[in-house]
Amino acid sequence: MGVYEGFSKQQLILRKEELEQRFSLYKKQNLKLDMSRGKPCSEQLDLSNAVFEYNGDFTTEEGFDCRNYGLPDGIPEMKKIFADILGVSSENVIIGNSSSLNMMYDTFVRAYLFGISGCEPWNRLEKVRFLCPSPGYDRHFAICEQFNMEMITIPMNEDGPDMDMVEELVRDDESIKGIWCVPMYSNPTGAVYSDDVVRRLAGMKTKAADFRIFWDNAYAVHHLYEENKVLNILEECERAGNPDRVYLFTSTAKITFAGSGVAAMASSVENVRQIKEKMSIQTIGSNKINQLLHARFFKNYDGIKAHMEKHARILRPKFEMVSKILNDNLSGLGIASWTSPRGGYFISLDVHEGCAKKVVAKAKEAGVTLTPAGATFPYGRDPKDRNIRIAPTYPPLEELKSALEVLCICVELTVLEKILQN
Amino acid sequence: MGVYEGFSKQQLILRKEELEQRFSLYKKQNLKLDMSRGKPCSEQLDLSNAVFEYNGDFTTEEGFDCRNYGLPDGIPEMKKIFADILGVSSENVIIGNSSSLNMMYDTFVRAYLFGISGCEPWNRLEKVRFLCPSPGYDRHFAICEQFNMEMITIPMNEDGPDMDMVEELVRDDESIKGIWCVPMYSNPTGAVYSDDVVRRLAGMKTKAADFRIFWDNAYAVHHLYEENKVLNILEECERAGNPDRVYLFTSTAKITFAGSGVAAMASSVENVRQIKEKMSIQTIGSNKINQLLHARFFKNYDGIKAHMEKHARILRPKFEMVSKILNDNLSGLGIASWTSPRGGYFISLDVHEGCAKKVVAKAKEAGVTLTPAGATFPYGRDPKDRNIRIAPTYPPLEELKSALEVLCICVELTVLEKILQN
Repeated sequence: MGVYEGFSKQQLILRKEELEQRFSLYKKQNLKLDMSRGKPCSEQLDLSNAVFEYNGDFTTEEGFDCRNYGLPDGIPEMKKIFADILGVSSENVIIGNSSSLNMMYDTFVRAYLFGISGCEPWNRLEKVRFLCPSPGYDRHFAICEQFNMEMITIPMNEDGPDMDMVEELVRDDESIKGIWCVPMYSNPTGAVYSDDVVRRLAGMKTKAADFRIFWDNAYAVHHLYEENKVLNILEECERAGNPDRVYLFTSTAKITFAGSGVAAMASSVENVRQIKEKMSIQTIGSNKINQLLHARFFKNYDGIKAHMEKHARILRPKFEMVSKILNDNLSGLGIASWTSPRGGYFISLDVHEGCAKKVVAKAKEAGVTLTPAGATFPYGRDPKDRNIRIAPTYPPLEELKSALEVLCICVELTVLEKILQN
Repeated sequence: MGVYEGFSKQQLILRKEELEQRFSLYKKQNLKLDMSRGKPCSEQLDLSNAVFEYNGDFTTEEGFDCRNYGLPDGIPEMKKIFADILGVSSENVIIGNSSSLNMMYDTFVRAYLFGISGCEPWNRLEKVRFLCPSPGYDRHFAICEQFNMEMITIPMNEDGPDMDMVEELVRDDESIKGIWCVPMYSNPTGAVYSDDVVRRLAGMKTKAADFRIFWDNAYAVHHLYEENKVLNILEECERAGNPDRVYLFTSTAKITFAGSGVAAMASSVENVRQIKEKMSIQTIGSNKINQLLHARFFKNYDGIKAHMEKHARILRPKFEMVSKILNDNLSGLGIASWTSPRGGYFISLDVHEGCAKKVVAKAKEAGVTLTPAGATFPYGRDPKDRNIRIAPTYPPLEELKSALEVLCICVELTVLEKILQN
């Protein structure tokens, strides 16, 4: 559909004037609304306060005292819960502190300094390239940038990355060492990887023997409606004869506490062995008391699922309000499209080409802070300057409503300014 | 004094027979005593259980919600406590998770991958050498070994490392990038660095612009008797015109919970800026709830000091018993010497040259596990095979008594076997 198809120039001028008036009213309100990051709201955090209802005992089911040294890869009961979340066995799991990002980063450190499975350490290579399905997660790309990897943007489809492009690239280029994936409710589009995509990732031929999938399953259990499943990547890799291809990551950052939860990674037994060997020199281990308190709070995987339904009850109205306001204001104009995720933390909004930066700047004028335009692409550069990430979880419903109304006004105004200029 | 000076051969044979009898009695007891690592005992850990008496509020004094993202370098009240422990300002402090070893390791990672203060990253250098005062801490040496640094053993005196040797080495060798220091109650000798040693470390000329002192102040407040002070290294470095020379580390591992406490590092404002810049890509931050619970438990530095007196009351009898048993059994024989630390976690025992490995193996036969002989030296090789680290904190007093008696028997038997063979 064309941009403002069926509108006369006069109608567009009137519409622009009307929007400018509404925008100036919002500016007078001195709003201070932040939708820049995927932060849980206080109501969500309250759901987990009882983690700290300490019952005076710090020993695991097997009688290990979590207050002392030992079990550097985690306590059994927490391993079991993460194993169930990720669809693996406890022996595949390593528990970290609170940040799964930290575990991803350290995985790169090991690849760079020591190499993976006997391959050359990446710091000795002239070039390391990495596949970045985009729009994607800015913190993933920031790691690549710090390590001076060359990022290759892969278009992100509704069922995962463009696999034709991925397969072709990895087949012949030994410098391509991996791919970032957020398989469930991808950040920011909310896409869920299809079985076909998972199988192709697991089975494709890669020139690099140390090619690795960084499988950031941050939203594995973060359903807003029905329970979704992504095909088991570790099993598929094994089945395809590439058992060591994938590193899985997840955390309770958006289950219990953002920044004070428990993070974990999983991989093949051989990869886990290699990681633990290096880790034994790096650290005396992760916070086991935090693990124990978390494990007791949830008891098991069913406990996690029941807990996530409570989160969904808080978040559903926020996501639905965003959808409604976008629909009410922007549908049928041909100037924007957006995703309707069934879970996760984000909604992805594509505005008219070349307008995203201006929209974000304009919203800022009225006190609405969005994720910087471009952040969802490698190097912070959205080639079409059109993607905006909406993070609706943190603001209260009323504030979210105002913020979205401002955003819709900014989207329209920016496009109208552009087309009326010509 | 000579070995068994004044004893006739006949007397030594009789003594050996007597010790063999006592040893075989111990063997029959099927002891299972572990003095291998500096672990706090349950009674010590109990002192801190109230850290988890949660009062329902997770906000800092300034009103920050610790359950959510933010404050990646730590909460103000915990920074203040660590600043006081280390004698620095809050702006010099970065808080980590539970492991200060992890913070040391990550500091090496940054030096290797990105370089320090604009100097060449260490992974691009042909050789990196590191000074290792010994006997020292095996986990420090293990990091050097994993990074393939060349370790140079520096003799450890009663007032710190041999500074004549240190100064001479660093003056002309650009590949020497740093030195390990445990300034207070050094692991394992218990030595406290003198003012002179601190000043010389701070002021010496180093060929490498990126030479760094790794100041592991693990036992900063771990006094058994009077309060000791080490000269303020950060101030001395500033005064000497080398403001960025030192990284300080400490943790509450042996104040609250081993492996689940809070760790911190400190350095010049410029170093802290560089570290935070890299860290912002590595992690979303450390566990702030754990910090908050710790800070509330102690309130301030005075709270820490009062708490450490409780530890001292538990540990003093253990250290004194070790001293007494060593004195009663081994003094006057010319076959061993040992330290009498005023704090910390270890006692260092030097046995007759060439005997340490055999002593440790023999003790193991009777069920007494000691730190492997040699572990206190680079590459696990004690050139004189004589140093044994005694970790008296973990076993209950009665078990400690048996373990020490076994150890003394093993020390004597090993020497007697050796000299009677000739």
